[in-house]
Amino acid sequence: MLRPSYAHAVYPVDGYKFGHKPAKQEKEGGPPERLARLRAKFEREGLRRSVDAVLLVQQHGHPHVLLLQLGNSGLFKLPGGKLKPGEDEIEGLRRKLVTYLSPDDPNLVTPWEIGECVGTWWRPNYDTVLYPYLSPHVTRPKEVRRLYIAPLLDRSCFAVPRNYKLVAVPLFELYDNAARFGPVLASIPQMLCRFRLNIV
Amino acid sequence: MLRPSYAHAVYPVDGYKFGHKPAKQEKEGGPPERLARLRAKFEREGLRRSVDAVLLVQQHGHPHVLLLQLGNSGLFKLPGGKLKPGEDEIEGLRRKLVTYLSPDDPNLVTPWEIGECVGTWWRPNYDTVLYPYLSPHVTRPKEVRRLYIAPLLDRSCFAVPRNYKLVAVPLFELYDNAARFGPVLASIPQMLCRFRLNIV
Ligand SMILES: [Zn+2]
Ligand SMILES: [Zn+2]
Ligand SMILES: [Zn+2]
Ligand SMILES: [Zn+2]
Repeated sequence: MLRPSYAHAVYPVDGYKFGHKPAKQEKEGGPPERLARLRAKFEREGLRRSVDAVLLVQQHGHPHVLLLQLGNSGLFKLPGGKLKPGEDEIEGLRRKLVTYLSPDDPNLVTPWEIGECVGTWWRPNYDTVLYPYLSPHVTRPKEVRRLYIAPLLDRSCFAVPRNYKLVAVPLFELYDNAARFGPVLASIPQMLCRFRLNIV
Repeated sequence: MLRPSYAHAVYPVDGYKFGHKPAKQEKEGGPPERLARLRAKFEREGLRRSVDAVLLVQQHGHPHVLLLQLGNSGLFKLPGGKLKPGEDEIEGLRRKLVTYLSPDDPNLVTPWEIGECVGTWWRPNYDTVLYPYLSPHVTRPKEVRRLYIAPLLDRSCFAVPRNYKLVAVPLFELYDNAARFGPVLASIPQMLCRFRLNIV
């Protein structure tokens, strides 16, 4: 029986250039306002579909995940976001990666490669909790979020909106740390652990 | 770009017959004795390699994982165990599945199919804790454990050693419940969440 190799090359962070670009306007308000928008949109459009990208780099010999940190808040997220109605997951994720990470200079634009899906998370209710399964008896989940690994080339240029910082967080800092990162980010180590991450 | 479908059919538990067979002799002692054996073996043979199988069934409409419960203890494990030196992972996992779950009657023997690897866990030290990554700066890990999904046919016969019970545990009971199931079993939902589990 033929088996996939599960291997991913993870390149040193020094191969990447991190520049800035204008701030990305985010909708105002905290969790209550976001949940109110989720509810209003759900009533118009139904299930929200989101996609996120897991980007890996290596630093002092071990894999790190690139996270966007909003300002100086303790809020971390993967590059990604909501799809438009009917939008293809892969196309939408490329669009989000361009928004959050590609330089505006067209000569520097990264050819984003989207790899395998590494996880699917569900939001059963109008609250902030997501689960790695669709809870039984939930017939109208509010959001489904799919995470894809996005393999990086050994070098490229990123441009980060000025209201964000891009940080490289090692797997052991994410693991079992839902208190700080929320359940989805804290589970990245489990979602990736079938891969052989080759530290190049 | 062609993408795998990630779909797995999960069949009703009623399609399976659960019989008994003679107890499987397990080595005596609790965690201290087990760790002493791990240490002694490591010094002779090096890194312990283990494999476990994730078997899914559906019950009242949602996926459940089959776990072996030792006696009436609160100890749960997946069918699986240690490989012999040099033994192939897939062959070894089939051997373990036969030991723990196949009827002795050769007419009833299950043709065990082993699917994708869903996770790799490392034990860095001589203690009970496993992590879904190889911790930085650990050059001599003590054990590596790989989990494979083993897709079941829609019906088959199992025979469970008399010192074990086979229990079907829903994903939501495992999730975030390392206190009861340990970190590996409690992370099965995250390791499976990229699959579309089709409740047949
Ligand atoms: Zn280090
Ligand atoms: Zn670091
Ligand atoms: Zn139920
Ligand atoms: Zn149940």
